[in-house]
This record gives sequence, C-alpha cells and structure tokens, in this order.
Amino acid sequence: MSKFVYFFGDGHSEGKADMRNLLGGKGANLAEMSNIGIPVPPGFTITTDVCTIYYANEKKWPEGLKEQVKEAVAKVEATTGKKFGDPENPLLFSVRSGARVSMPGMMDTVLNLGLTDTTIKGLEKQNARFAYDSYRRFIQMYGDVVRGVDHDLFEEAIEKAKNEAGVNNDSELTPEQLNVLVAEYKAIYKKATGEDFPQDPWTQLEGAVNAVFNSWDTDRAIKYRQLNNIPGNWGTAVNVQTMVYGNLNDSSGTGVAFTRNPATGENVFYGEYLMKAQGEDVVAGIRTPHEIADLKEEMPVIYAELEAIYHKLEQHYKDMQDIEFTIEDNKLYMLQTRNGKRTAAAAVRIAVEMVDEGLIDEKTAVLRVGPEQLDQLLHPMIDPNFKGDVLTKGLPASPGAAVGRVVFTAQEAEEWNNKGEKVVLVRVETSPEDIGGMASAQGILTARGGMTSHAAVVARGMGKCCVSGAGDVKVDFAKRTFNVGGTEVKEGDWISLNGTTGEVFKGQADLIEPQVAGDFATLMGWADKYRQVGVRTNADTPEDALRAREFGAEGIGLCRTEHMFFKGDRIISIRKMILSNTEAERRSALDELLPYQKDDFTELFKAMKGLPVTIRLLDPPLHEFVPHTDQEQAQMAKKMGRTKEEVKAKVDSLEEFNPMLGHRGCRLAVTYPEIYEMQARAIMEAACELNKEGYDIVPEIMIPLVGDVKELSYVKDRVEKVVKDTLSDYGVSFGYQIGTMIEIPRACLTANEIAKEADFFSFGTNDLTQMTYGFSRDDAGSFIKDYIDKKILTSDVFATLDQTGVGALVEVAVEKGKSTNPGIKLGICGEHGGDPATVEFCHKVGLTYVSCSPFRVPIAKLAAAQAAVKNPR
Amino acid sequence: MSKFVYFFGDGHSEGKADMRNLLGGKGANLAEMSNIGIPVPPGFTITTDVCTIYYANEKKWPEGLKEQVKEAVAKVEATTGKKFGDPENPLLFSVRSGARVSMPGMMDTVLNLGLTDTTIKGLEKQNARFAYDSYRRFIQMYGDVVRGVDHDLFEEAIEKAKNEAGVNNDSELTPEQLNVLVAEYKAIYKKATGEDFPQDPWTQLEGAVNAVFNSWDTDRAIKYRQLNNIPGNWGTAVNVQTMVYGNLNDSSGTGVAFTRNPATGENVFYGEYLMKAQGEDVVAGIRTPHEIADLKEEMPVIYAELEAIYHKLEQHYKDMQDIEFTIEDNKLYMLQTRNGKRTAAAAVRIAVEMVDEGLIDEKTAVLRVGPEQLDQLLHPMIDPNFKGDVLTKGLPASPGAAVGRVVFTAQEAEEWNNKGEKVVLVRVETSPEDIGGMASAQGILTARGGMTSHAAVVARGMGKCCVSGAGDVKVDFAKRTFNVGGTEVKEGDWISLNGTTGEVFKGQADLIEPQVAGDFATLMGWADKYRQVGVRTNADTPEDALRAREFGAEGIGLCRTEHMFFKGDRIISIRKMILSNTEAERRSALDELLPYQKDDFTELFKAMKGLPVTIRLLDPPLHEFVPHTDQEQAQMAKKMGRTKEEVKAKVDSLEEFNPMLGHRGCRLAVTYPEIYEMQARAIMEAACELNKEGYDIVPEIMIPLVGDVKELSYVKDRVEKVVKDTLSDYGVSFGYQIGTMIEIPRACLTANEIAKEADFFSFGTNDLTQMTYGFSRDDAGSFIKDYIDKKILTSDVFATLDQTGVGALVEVAVEKGKSTNPGIKLGICGEHGGDPATVEFCHKVGLTYVSCSPFRVPIAKLAAAQAAVKNPR
Repeated sequence: MSKFVYFFGDGHSEGKADMRNLLGGKGANLAEMSNIGIPVPPGFTITTDVCTIYYANEKKWPEGLKEQVKEAVAKVEATTGKKFGDPENPLLFSVRSGARVSMPGMMDTVLNLGLTDTTIKGLEKQNARFAYDSYRRFIQMYGDVVRGVDHDLFEEAIEKAKNEAGVNNDSELTPEQLNVLVAEYKAIYKKATGEDFPQDPWTQLEGAVNAVFNSWDTDRAIKYRQLNNIPGNWGTAVNVQTMVYGNLNDSSGTGVAFTRNPATGENVFYGEYLMKAQGEDVVAGIRTPHEIADLKEEMPVIYAELEAIYHKLEQHYKDMQDIEFTIEDNKLYMLQTRNGKRTAAAAVRIAVEMVDEGLIDEKTAVLRVGPEQLDQLLHPMIDPNFKGDVLTKGLPASPGAAVGRVVFTAQEAEEWNNKGEKVVLVRVETSPEDIGGMASAQGILTARGGMTSHAAVVARGMGKCCVSGAGDVKVDFAKRTFNVGGTEVKEGDWISLNGTTGEVFKGQADLIEPQVAGDFATLMGWADKYRQVGVRTNADTPEDALRAREFGAEGIGLCRTEHMFFKGDRIISIRKMILSNTEAERRSALDELLPYQKDDFTELFKAMKGLPVTIRLLDPPLHEFVPHTDQEQAQMAKKMGRTKEEVKAKVDSLEEFNPMLGHRGCRLAVTYPEIYEMQARAIMEAACELNKEGYDIVPEIMIPLVGDVKELSYVKDRVEKVVKDTLSDYGVSFGYQIGTMIEIPRACLTANEIAKEADFFSFGTNDLTQMTYGFSRDDAGSFIKDYIDKKILTSDVFATLDQTGVGALVEVAVEKGKSTNPGIKLGICGEHGGDPATVEFCHKVGLTYVSCSPFRVPIAKLAAAQAAVKNPR
Repeated sequence: MSKFVYFFGDGHSEGKADMRNLLGGKGANLAEMSNIGIPVPPGFTITTDVCTIYYANEKKWPEGLKEQVKEAVAKVEATTGKKFGDPENPLLFSVRSGARVSMPGMMDTVLNLGLTDTTIKGLEKQNARFAYDSYRRFIQMYGDVVRGVDHDLFEEAIEKAKNEAGVNNDSELTPEQLNVLVAEYKAIYKKATGEDFPQDPWTQLEGAVNAVFNSWDTDRAIKYRQLNNIPGNWGTAVNVQTMVYGNLNDSSGTGVAFTRNPATGENVFYGEYLMKAQGEDVVAGIRTPHEIADLKEEMPVIYAELEAIYHKLEQHYKDMQDIEFTIEDNKLYMLQTRNGKRTAAAAVRIAVEMVDEGLIDEKTAVLRVGPEQLDQLLHPMIDPNFKGDVLTKGLPASPGAAVGRVVFTAQEAEEWNNKGEKVVLVRVETSPEDIGGMASAQGILTARGGMTSHAAVVARGMGKCCVSGAGDVKVDFAKRTFNVGGTEVKEGDWISLNGTTGEVFKGQADLIEPQVAGDFATLMGWADKYRQVGVRTNADTPEDALRAREFGAEGIGLCRTEHMFFKGDRIISIRKMILSNTEAERRSALDELLPYQKDDFTELFKAMKGLPVTIRLLDPPLHEFVPHTDQEQAQMAKKMGRTKEEVKAKVDSLEEFNPMLGHRGCRLAVTYPEIYEMQARAIMEAACELNKEGYDIVPEIMIPLVGDVKELSYVKDRVEKVVKDTLSDYGVSFGYQIGTMIEIPRACLTANEIAKEADFFSFGTNDLTQMTYGFSRDDAGSFIKDYIDKKILTSDVFATLDQTGVGALVEVAVEKGKSTNPGIKLGICGEHGGDPATVEFCHKVGLTYVSCSPFRVPIAKLAAAQAAVKNPR
C-alpha cells in the first residue's frame, strides 16, 4: 500500500523540506518547521500523487486513502487533545492546497472544517459570538468552495441582517443575531444544493479535500500554470491542519511577513499584521493592516519570539522567507514558511548580501536569481528627474515603470493590448480572474490591498510594475473614471506608474535606460566566472550591437543582412536585382548595393571592436522584397524601362505556395551565385580596410539553409574565391571563417558531411523547429491554442526549445559534426538562444555559445552560469 | 604508382568481366572475350579512375599515365607485329569511351588514329584508295571531336569534290581525288584551329583520349545521365584498340547483332551487317544493311564462326548479348559484347525462357527485368509504328496513351464523358476540384507543373496518361482553344497523348493494348515467391481498388478520404461543415456526409474482399475545400443563410502562409474532433454491416500528421470511443487497428513514444521529404533544376527516397518504434512506395509492406523480389 498521508507537528513530522515534490511546498515546510522546533499547529498532508491518481481515476480516492486519513486525524487528536466531531472540545481543521511551487490565490481553501450543530457546542462554551461567526463563515466557505453556492447569496443575507440590526460592521452583530444567520445560511445552502448542510465532519473533510483537488484544474489555475510554465501533471497536495484562531479574542491576531524587504532586498523584517483577524483578512485588504514593526510595541514578547523564529528560519533555509503566523490568545503559531517571492532587484541584492554575510557561496548566489526576472532590471525606469504631475502615491508593490492608457477591467486590458494599445489596469483590488488582464497590462494600480495583496504578489511574479493600496483613488466603474484628489481620469487617459516609489503620474512619464552596475554587476561577474557557454547577440544595426556590448555580449552571433536591404533607397536596387532578366543586369544592380552593404559592415565591425561578428548571407525568399502595389510596380517599371505588366508578371512568378520551404537561403545562391559574391566582397572590403587601420577583425560568414554538404561546397567555393580575391586586392592577410546555419532537419542528419566544409555551425532553431514539428510559425496561431488548452503542448515550442524532438536533432548534429571536425565552433542563434531552459540545454550538449537579442544577454549569461553550476562539464 | 592502364588481347588480358567499374563495360568485356579465346583486336583500357583524376586535376593526366600508355602500346605492337607511327606497317587505333553502364551515342570516338603523312605510306601499299579514304575520315573525325572543327566544312569539301568529279557516292571518287581531298581537309583543319594537323601519333593519341574524357561532361551526356540516374562521378574509361577494317576489301564487312530478338525476346539470332563498311556505316543508316541471316549464304564459314561465338558468349554471360563484329579480309574479329538492351516484353520472355533452358535460375530471372520497365507492359500504348503529327512535347508525367477530344474544364470532361465521348482534359494546371474531370478523361495535358505536380501525381495514382508542363501550350479559355507553335486546337478536336514520351499528337493515334499474362505472369509468380515485403496499393475508389487487385495488390495501404469529398454534391456539405460557426452546425453538416462516406467505405471494402484496407482520416487544410469564386461564395451563402461577405471572410480566414505546415491532418481533429468521429463511424458502420454479411474486414484507421504522442493519444481516444460505440450499437465484435502516418521529422525522433499508441506506422515519405529537406514540393520546381544542373542533387528526391537524410529518419523511426512495440506493422505510402530503389531500402530496413499506385504494384513486387534476392534478410 502506498503512503498517501504524512503527519506533521509536535517535532515529529513524517515529512521534511526536501519532499516538496510529494508534499507540495507548504506541506514540506510545515513538516520541516515542526522538526526544527518551531510551533506549528499539527496536521497532515495528502500527497500530490493522490491528486494525480484522483484525476486518472475519475475523481475517486485511491484505496487506502480513507484509512490513512483516519489514522492521521487520530494522531492529530492525540497531539492536540481535541477530538474531530467532539461536542466538548472539537478539533477543527483548515484544508488548503499546496503545490510544488506556490500558486498564490489560485486554488481553494476551506477553514473551520468540522463545525456542525453538535461541535458548535464546544465552541459556544469558549466564546459564543466567535462560535457562531465561525460557523456562518464555514457554511459560506464550504457552500461556495465545495458545492459552488453563489457567495453573493450569503453576502445579501448578512447585509440584510446588518440593516435590520441597524449596524454597519459584521463585528457589531450580536451572538444571537449571528446564530439566526447560521440558520439562514443553512437554508441558503439547502435551497441551492437540495441537501442539508452536512453534519458529519468526515463528509465535510472528504468534500473539502476533493474541492482542493478540483481547484487544480480551474481555468484560472490552468492559465496561471501556462503563464508560469508549471506542468499540469504535477498536481497539488492537500494540507489538513488544526485551526488556530487569530480572531479568537483581543490577544489574538495574524500576519504575513518577509525576512527581508521583497521589493528592494533590504535586510529588514518586513510585513503586516492585523489583530483579531484571520489570515484572509490581511490578504483580502478589507482592513488596512499595520506594519510589522508596530507589533513590537503592541506585543513585545510575541514579537521577540517571532524575531527569533525568522532568524532561525533564514539561517535554516539560507534564503529569504515569506512567513505566515497566527497569534491565538497570546500564543504564537507559524502557519507557513516558504522562500519569499521578490523583485529582480531584491533577488540580486539578497543574493549578493547573503554571500557577504557568509550565508551562501557565489555559486549558490548565482542560482538565486531567476534569469527571466532580470528582464525587470533591463527595462526602462522612470527618470528620477522627471517632474510629472503626481496624482497620488500608493505602495511600491512591484518595481519598474509603466506608461499606458487607463482601463478598468481585465477583459478590456486584454482587448486593448491585442489592438496594440499600452494600458495600465486600474482596479479596486485584483482577483485571480484578472490574471490575463494583468499580463496584458504595462502595470497595475489598485486602490486597496497591501504589499502582500493579490495584485502585489502576482505583479512581482510577472516582473510587472504595480502600485497597490492607493487609497485616494476612487473608482467609478459605471462612468469608467477614477477620481483622485478632485482630478478625474477617464478610460483611455494616459497615466504612468513608478513601481519603485509608488508614485502615480498623469500623462506619459520620461523613461531612462537601465544600467548594469552595483549588486547587479557583482552578480553578473560571478555569472561570467562560472559559466562555460559564451553569449553573443543577434544584432543587425550598430545601435543594437552597442547596446548588446554594454550588456556584455561577447560578439554577434547573427547579423541578418536582409534587414539592411530595406533602409533608404536600397530597396530600389534590391528590386532591380530581383526583377533582372539576365545575370549582367543582376550584377549591375548588385554593384549599386555593394557600397551600402560595405558601409553597414564597417559600422558593425567598428561597434564590436574586434569581437567576432557572424554575418548571415541573404536568407528570405525574394518575394519579400518586391513591390506588391500597382503604384510601386509602375514605379519600378519606369525605373527599369519595363512595362508594368512585365514587372507584375515577374512579381507573380516569385509567389510561392509555401515560401518557408521555398526558394530562399543558399538556394538563392545556387541559382544566383552573384548575390552572395557581392555580400562576401562587401564584408571583406570592410574588414580589409578596418584591419589596415589596426582593427583585428575575423569575419565569420554564415551560409543559411544548407541541407546537403554539396550545397554548402558549391556556395562556399564561390564565396571563398571572393574572400581570397579581396584579400589579395588589398594585399592583406588575416583569418576568416565560413560556416553554416543548421536549420534543416537533413543538415542535422548529415552533419558529419557538412562539418567537413564548415568552420562553424550555428543552429537556427526557429526554422529547425518549424520543419521538425511541421509547424509554420505564421500559421500555428490558429491551432496552437487548442494544443495548449488540450494539454498536447505544455509550452510554446517557438519560445522554449523542444528538447525531445528538435533537441534530439541538435544533439545528433553536434555529435556528427564533432566526429569529422573536432574543433568546430557550435552556436545557436534562434529565438531560443535567450531562453534559460534552452541555454541549459546548450550547455549540456556542449555548444560554444548562444546568441540572443541584446536585452536578453544578461539573462542568457546568468542562465549559462546556472547551467554550469547545476551541470558541471 | 597506381595502375591506370590494362592491356587486353591475345588470350592474356589484364582485366576481366567483373572489373566493369574500373574498366567500363566495353573494356571489361573486351578483356573477358579475349580471355575466353574469342578473337579480339588487341588494345588497352585507360581506367575510369583516370577520368575522375583528370577532372579533379584541371584536366591534366596523372603522373605515370604517359609511361603506362607507352608500355601498353609496346605490348600491342608486340602482339600485332605492327608499330605505332611506323611507315611500313603502321599500328592504327580506335579510341572509344566506355562507362560502367552503356551510354549509347553520348560520348565521342576517334577512328584510324595514328595516320600521318608518314604512316599513310604503309597503308598506301595495301590499298591506296582505302588509305586516302581512311586518312580523310580521320582528319575530319579528329578535327570535329578533338578540336571542335565544324564537320559541315568537311562535308562541303567532299560534296564539292563529288560535284567536280561528277559522281554521286564517296566510293566513286578515285584514290587521286581522295588524296586531293586529304590536302583540302588538312587546310580546313589549319584554318579552323590555326595549327597544322598533328603529325605525331602520340600527340594524336593524347588528344583523342582527352576528347573522350571531355565528352563525359557534355550537356547531352549530363542530360542522359540525369534521365538514367547515372552518377556524374563514375567517369568513363577509354579503350584504345587496334583498328580492323571492314572496308578493306570485298572480303571485309561489319555488323551488329543480338543473340535474341531485343524487341520480342524470341530466341533467334538477330542483327544486321554491311560488306565493305565500317561500323558507323551500319549505325548511320547511309546504306541499308542486310539481315544477319543473309550472311549465312554470303560467308558461310564466317557465319558459322559467328554463330559459335554468339552461343559461347550467351553461355558465358548467361544473358542475351549485343555484339559488334568486323570481318577484315575474311577474318572475323569481335569488337564488343555487352548485355543487350531489350523491351520489357523481351526482357520478360528471355528471363523466363532462360530458366526453361536451364541457363539461369528463378532468382536470377527475377533480377533480369528492370522493375521500371514493367511500366511499358501495364498501360495501353501508342503503336510505335504510328507516324503522327507531333504538336509539342511535355513531361512524360504518367505513362500510357490517351486519345480523345479536347475539353478545357473538369465539368465538361464529366459531361462529355457521360454522353459517351472520349475526352482529353487540357488545363493550365489541375487542382483538387478537377478530380472528377480527370477521372472522366482519357488523359490530361497541362501547360504548367512538373513530374510531381498535382496533375502528374493524381494521374499516376489513377493510372491515367498525363503529359504535364507542356510550356508551348497557350490556353485561351475564353475562346475555348489552345495554341501550340501556331497551330490552333479547338474544343472538341481530337488529340492524342503519349504519356511515356511526353509527345502530344494532333488527331487520333493508333493504340496497342498491353497483355498481362503468360511469361509475365510466370515472372510475377517468381517475384511473389522470393519477396519478403508486402505490396499494397494507394486507392481511393473501388475502381482503383479492383484494378490494383488484378495487378496483385495485397491490400490498400492508403485510402485518401478527402478525394471522396469532391464527388457530386458532397462538396456542399463539406463546405457547410467548414463554414460552420458552432460545433452544432458542424455536426449537422457532418451528419449529411456520414451516409456518403459510409457508402464509399462499403464499396471499397467489398472491392478488396477482406484484404486489409488502411483509411487515412481527413488530411488537407480546409482551405482546399472552400469556394473561391464570387459566384460559389454567393451560392454557399444562400444555402447557409449567410451573407456573401460572411462566407468570404471565413474563406479568407482559412488562408495560410505555409499551408503545408499549417492547420491540417490530426491538427484539424484536435480543433474539431467531430470530423474524425464522423469518419470513424462511417468506416465502422460499413465494416459492421459487411462483417454481418460474412465479410472478414479488419479496418485500419490511420491518423495523419502526428508529431507528438499526445496528439495521437488525444485523437485516438476519441476515434476509438466511436469505434467501440459502433461495434456495440451493431452488437458485433471484430478486430480493428488504429495507427498513424509517420511524416513529420519529430514523429521519427519520438517514434518510441508514438509506437506505444499505434498499431501501425505508415511512412508518408512525401511530406517527410518536404520537411526533412525543407523543400516545398509545389515550389521546388523553381530551383531544383539548378540543383541538378549544378550536380548538388543527383535525382529528384520526391521520386526516389533520399536514403542518407530522409532514410536515416525512417531507420530511426523503425528502430525506436520496434523498441517499444516489437510487433508494430510498418509500411510506406508515399509516392516513393512504387520506386524500385526505395522498395529495396524498405526491404533492408525491415518494413512490412510498401503501398503504391495500382499500376506500380507489379513494379513494386518485382523490386521487392530483387531486393530480397540481393539482400537476404
């Protein structure tokens, strides 16, 4: 019989921290905390395996689970001295989800479980008001979560009760009034479900556990997993834990805190608490909580205990912790600890400072920052000197800057974004349903909620700017406006957020470019120290090249020459070349282009100052360059002394059914060798002239779309002749390389032959993915959503390399290529080159370098360092 | 030092018959004949390796060749008693090409080499007339072949001489007149080349050898090799052989003969000869030669000797021989023997009769007929004696013959056919909508498109004659005419197509019917006995299925259900389905289609009488089925109660950039599972009803375009549910299989996973080739010619499987597939399935069966048998 249930509490847990995959993060850490002597209300965890079995087994419990749950409950009873279902001293449970990685607010929770008309008696004796309030909360929560009863029905009932009682707050209702409400709630439950509210606590427990399992597969949870690349088959664990009450009396309270500031990384205890409240009151933002520092005055003993615990936890986990605690009648309980989410800036600062503190080593520090997170540090911020019209100031919940037009619903955020509009989503408070809209917005502004509110946590996770708890913001949804200090802002108006300061500006703020400095530079230094894969950039212009060098790029891995063809009047010469009828005409048009291309390469070589530059010769089908409108065709006809009909006929003849698989890349050079000859000459003339001036340029010429070694030989022979002729014309001699893109499956399969003719391979994983999958990137939009919805694909294969299929071909090519050319240089220059998972793959298969867009260079470097630390070569 | 030169003659040759690769066919057989005591003028062979070195070495002789040639000449001098360059008894040579396989008439020859103003004296003594005639022939031949002197210049000179002498024939010129002509020829040579005619026989020899090497790479030789799949790197050998003269005197002559009739295979000596003539006189047809039988009377001793030799050769080579002989002054010399080319009918008859004669065994007989040749026996043909008016020549896209009246639309083809008219459908190019019209026509002529165009592929599939890519044909739809080289052909005019040659005739050609019986049936029986790979057919209609069964197909390997969608009114329902906005609408349209599909499958199952039938579910992108013209869109809009704009918008939304890599195959079923559900139900209802009647059908349902096992699982689960539901509805139970096409590179790479979910794999090598090469079949026409011209590709990868690249993927898939599903059935159903080289590959990698168009079934069977004989498993 498999073990499905793990007890925790009382210093003798069955689980521990490294059992996260089985017990979920929360369960593993509850067990661990208990083991190291931290006070945790006892309970048990039902494993993630059970969730998987539950879904595989038509949502039924596996055999033996019921018995194991009963045993675990008995153990909790023995530990607490309370009994489940007991009218005297009833044991009540919270039932919470807990996946391998945190999915805040995405899944369901049921509190106060075990309350029935019988067990309520035990509570009544302690505090009647509290007892009835807990019972009515439980009925509502259970009805909503387990049975899908509309929670508005309950809200209406309590509103009515308050009106009748002439009071404003729930807390002003008398115990008797609350007891009446309990009866009304039960009636609402019965009307909605057709059944009495369950009076058997075991039935309640089974229902709540199933509700948690079911919440793994709600639309919002699926969407969250997609956004965060969490596999759908991981499942969630369920934590059943003894209830403790932060709302029991005036000596009770609850709070959430971070051991360091999650926004800045500063080493201060940071958090919020509320007295006489349950956990969700803090998170929900109904009452504005106090800063944790205030607790020191309010409950000095408890604060000291909490301080000792947080130090102990940070030393134990060697990372910044995000903790939840409850004080029940002057006694402190820890309900959760986990590694805290943090902004990129905080992650970097914490990692660097923890090395300084001797808590972790450099390699560990390198692992502590998510490469994707760095994106936040690489994007513009609001210029500190910007003097805008400050509307208000909220909490700096997630740093960075956002400039966008105001929308008020998540749906509109998505719609406007799809139309290409930049938007800022303004809400009273966000809820899990808003995830899609948050992802579509530049930033999020909320009127309510603290630093740990839903909006704040999710925005930080997304690396998205957020200002929360801007209490002055009064939203009028009906009018689609918000008012702040007398200023009305309408839907569609521009505002700007500074997530680092909490400022909200009217209009569009000025932004400044990011810099690699301070702790960030320290961390990148460690990354450079430990990584083994080089990082180049894909850059077609000197501007891109310069930016990438600032970010630490070690060369250009891909310069796409065709992008240069659209600049200025060059397109005219390109079109002449394409529309030519004879080689002589073509050569004459190419002669016009040569000086332009030479200039391009000169500027690029200069910008890279002797770092290697890989230039890909012309790749796209010629149809992409020709004039398509009547007017443009007429213009070209005039320039070339042709009729418009002739031009049109030529243009039409270039049209292809599947241009992706058509006449492009080196295939063009097989038909028209003179095109690559011109490009090779332009590259070499630029290099010759600069090297004469003292540069030390080693040009790398890359021939695209090779599928057979004979293609490469044919084209290379012609290119190399030009290279040698140019060197001889200039009377100079220096190194150069001629290599090829590997982007066709057949090239991978015959890489041993191709490597004999190539100085380097650069994997063009965009096209390789298209051909290996048979997916046209331009067309896959129409069905790939269905694939993800139906769990056939877990992620976008054009963003993260498919290691099973496409990766297998890359591995074949690496192995075969090295077999005939052991010193071959191996790179990757597809979109995947900046994706951390792909970088790790590239490290593992032994590539020399990855190449990515300039803004992703630091991300790729950090990912490469992490790969090296995790997988020593 | 490599051995470059091999002596032959005098019973002691250095080579032998099995050295064909090194010595070429002619050289190897000259050596062999000499070794078995057949009189051969002595000489030597310069190897094919030298040709390769010659080209690699800027057309220079390798070191040592000159010396080896001198030694060999010395050996010939010793054998013949003549001396090269000797004025008394000069040794003269013929210099001829000789490749591994015969390339008749493609390469150059120089005769009478060694004649100079000095050596002519030795000849003068024997016969002055003969001497001057030989000299002037040599000057002309050497000038033409070695130095490119226009041979018309020589022809004009001899014409003038004959006019001046007042004679009609060369033979009437006096020795003196011929001697004058020799001087004139030398002057012509000098004028054209700027040099005196070479008087050093060694210079002549080097020039002639180089000319033969150079003739390997002429356009016509390259073209011939392309047509016959002869690799360009094989090179030719050069045979330098002592001249013997069939024109020396009245007791001299020359002839060519076959040991059996090469047209019919009849076992009779068959050939022609001319007295007092050299070999080329027989071939050139200047004088009409005599039948070989006449030689028996004219020279009985020689004839008897010849008869003994031909029997000896046939016994020795165990095959029908094509021989050349010369009688010089009553002495018989053999100049060549080789296996004789023969028609398919002759090949079959000779193979079968040689088994009867005990000369060869059945396995050898199976190897004796070229599988491709069988094509000739399987289609009605234009009578080879028909002398028609050739309008133009296109590509021989699908063999056979068609005689019919011209129509220009598919609809008219159907209408005329229904009225009992035989028609030829003439289109610029065909599209899937034309299927019905193509089926109704005798043959198809297209102005555009290659050997693998839609028209060509579909026509071959139908076994219908097709001439494609006839670029001279200018169609004027408005006038219902086409114009070709100034001739106008109107709708209703008779034309005839020869699909085997690509010829288009005006009027009605005479046809001859093929016969599939007798020796052919015997041979096919042996093929069935020895082959290990099964042979199925690709068939979409009962007619195709029946024809294929007549040809011996063992099942259907590919039934493309989409072709059925164009029949009659079904296209309306298909379009309704595609244009639906909701699943309910789609299901209602599919319900309309169900009975049609069910009928289709019923007829197909009936036709195959319990043989396995593999049905591929819908594969092409939906865009192929939708109405494209305004009128059709309006019609659909009316039928569906929509506006034309709505219909047009939907049609436009289905357009794709790269439909080949778009929303098609199982991807459609991921989005719209109901389509495959309908098809699965139709298949199973048909099978259930027939099996209840006593049939024994095991349907094989094939899911196309799978790239990931999860796609297959998703689609298969839904299909299998319908299968089981249908079995249960009918209350029956029988076997069925669900498998997949393997046509995406990723499917090959992950075949171990996919095989767990598949009962069979069928390799769709058309698409697999497109994706592995990155070649769109529809677009490759624009560059593939350059690839073949530039020797980057040796053959069309869509006709013969690329074993290096695509084949490697097939091997990976076979190995991986068997690793997780050892019993998996493995087939191939691409166009390659009927290609003999591919069939051999399939045998080697262990496929269960190949599937090909009906008319290629015997070809595939024979190829499979040959593969089994050559590669015992």
